[in-house]
Amino acid sequence: MSTSYDSAAVLDYLRGLQDRICAALEQLDGRATFRRDAWQRAEGGGGESRVLRNGAVFEQAGVNFSHVMGHKLPPSATAQRPELADAKWLAAGVSLVIHPLNPYVPTTHANVRFFAATSDTSSAWWFGGGFDLTPYYPYEEDVLHWHRTAADACAPFGANVYPAHKDWCDKYFFLKHRNETRGVGGLFFDDLNEGGFERCFAYQRSVGDHFLPAYVPIVERRKDVPFGERERQFQLYRRGRYVEFNLVYDRGTSFGLQSGGRTESILMSLPPLVRWEYDWHPDPGSPEELLYKDFLRPRDWLNELPPRLSRG
Amino acid sequence: MSTSYDSAAVLDYLRGLQDRICAALEQLDGRATFRRDAWQRAEGGGGESRVLRNGAVFEQAGVNFSHVMGHKLPPSATAQRPELADAKWLAAGVSLVIHPLNPYVPTTHANVRFFAATSDTSSAWWFGGGFDLTPYYPYEEDVLHWHRTAADACAPFGANVYPAHKDWCDKYFFLKHRNETRGVGGLFFDDLNEGGFERCFAYQRSVGDHFLPAYVPIVERRKDVPFGERERQFQLYRRGRYVEFNLVYDRGTSFGLQSGGRTESILMSLPPLVRWEYDWHPDPGSPEELLYKDFLRPRDWLNELPPRLSRG
Repeated sequence: MSTSYDSAAVLDYLRGLQDRICAALEQLDGRATFRRDAWQRAEGGGGESRVLRNGAVFEQAGVNFSHVMGHKLPPSATAQRPELADAKWLAAGVSLVIHPLNPYVPTTHANVRFFAATSDTSSAWWFGGGFDLTPYYPYEEDVLHWHRTAADACAPFGANVYPAHKDWCDKYFFLKHRNETRGVGGLFFDDLNEGGFERCFAYQRSVGDHFLPAYVPIVERRKDVPFGERERQFQLYRRGRYVEFNLVYDRGTSFGLQSGGRTESILMSLPPLVRWEYDWHPDPGSPEELLYKDFLRPRDWLNELPPRLSRG
Repeated sequence: MSTSYDSAAVLDYLRGLQDRICAALEQLDGRATFRRDAWQRAEGGGGESRVLRNGAVFEQAGVNFSHVMGHKLPPSATAQRPELADAKWLAAGVSLVIHPLNPYVPTTHANVRFFAATSDTSSAWWFGGGFDLTPYYPYEEDVLHWHRTAADACAPFGANVYPAHKDWCDKYFFLKHRNETRGVGGLFFDDLNEGGFERCFAYQRSVGDHFLPAYVPIVERRKDVPFGERERQFQLYRRGRYVEFNLVYDRGTSFGLQSGGRTESILMSLPPLVRWEYDWHPDPGSPEELLYKDFLRPRDWLNELPPRLSRG
């Protein structure tokens, strides 16, 4: 693997992506704007957190840029790479989590990140990222649009990329203790360096650039669907799964908390209001049960027969 | 260390403790009663979860008994005992978490547990447990009563027990990423087998038996203190820290989720309603700031000068 990379180009792209996404979300919301917090990290680097709250469309949206560095990789980053346990490292990324107000609009998460590490004996760089969708009351056409856009992002990089990163997403965003996926998936990749820096960086840009075309049309279609207390309560309940995933399983959260990251920026992924209810189960045949039965498991959205036919 | 132990006596005590605590909480609540769910575990054993919801005093209270066994200890239990990595094991315990409605009544957690493990080459048993208090708007006299009762539970077992287990509690219930204790502490112990089974079991009983005398008087004193939306919102916000601790740090939660425990029983510790707010800070001089400044750090409650004098 070549060890040459252009971190300045990556940083330029990431800052521009943060700007573009924030501008699009403000326009979509129409009421609230992003508060910006620049922060510095004692060991090196810093970032800019942007948070929009109490919008007309978004109850909370956080879009963070960070560019941090350190003298020793934390354990969560070296489990797969013991030779880098004492490496100097840099990490840069944009990470976002959007919690909409209307339960018919899905929650979403997207992330693009770049790592580089150098020890006395070894050096490495790699990209990671992806985007995934977490609906409460899903529409099949929204999920198909989401996955088609994900497939479009991957297409220029080979026919095997979408299926591989779609599968990785299903496996990564899985709550073992619930036997549920977090949502309907999308793309997830990590440790990507195959084919050299330029090719990997181009793929990262394609993923980043496809986030807005994947998400915005879904928000536009669902943001004005009428809802009531029942839908709101189910949304708050399901947000509990989001908290469980992020705090129990998510590597980004572990890495951030372990590496002395800015706690408020890392935990802006947590929803503004959340409910747990002991031993709750959806009523048979209800729209809530449909989410569990037909959406919270890995499905080959782009290749399976329409459900009505396949159930036939 | 002697390897003989009487698990039947431990189980009798634990079942009785669950009954006594539930009866006392129902009486204190005056409106809601505990729903009981007996459950079995595929690998062996089971338990009985009891949950009270939407009470006059308690928004949610869970008091769980479990007695489970397996063929291979999960990693969270063998980090300190590699020789038991392949041991058959049994675990029995009562674990409770109480989330009161009134923000002037503290949240509390108590647990008493017994483990035994036998591999081809080695065998061991040990006790663990303790109780701790998480106030929102603390009263110093409540915290003193709590720690005096904890000290009473320990006193028959030697002068060093309370300070050691009080210190362990402060260190265990600590949110590193927030630089805050979870609450005002109490007692925490684990891996206890010194002095033989009878003595350790007697100490476990003393801790279990002192929970109600420690907590009930505080509830009685504060359950009718008037409160408004401000106090409620702060309570919901602080409950977020409880979720963060339990999902990120708590060994009992990790052990339960890793060992294929009953998810609903394990996660009944999570509050019924929780709020996160990006970068929130208490106003200087407010009652909310007092919690952070004077209570969410280790303090030698029973030996320090009264704060007003020590602040001079």
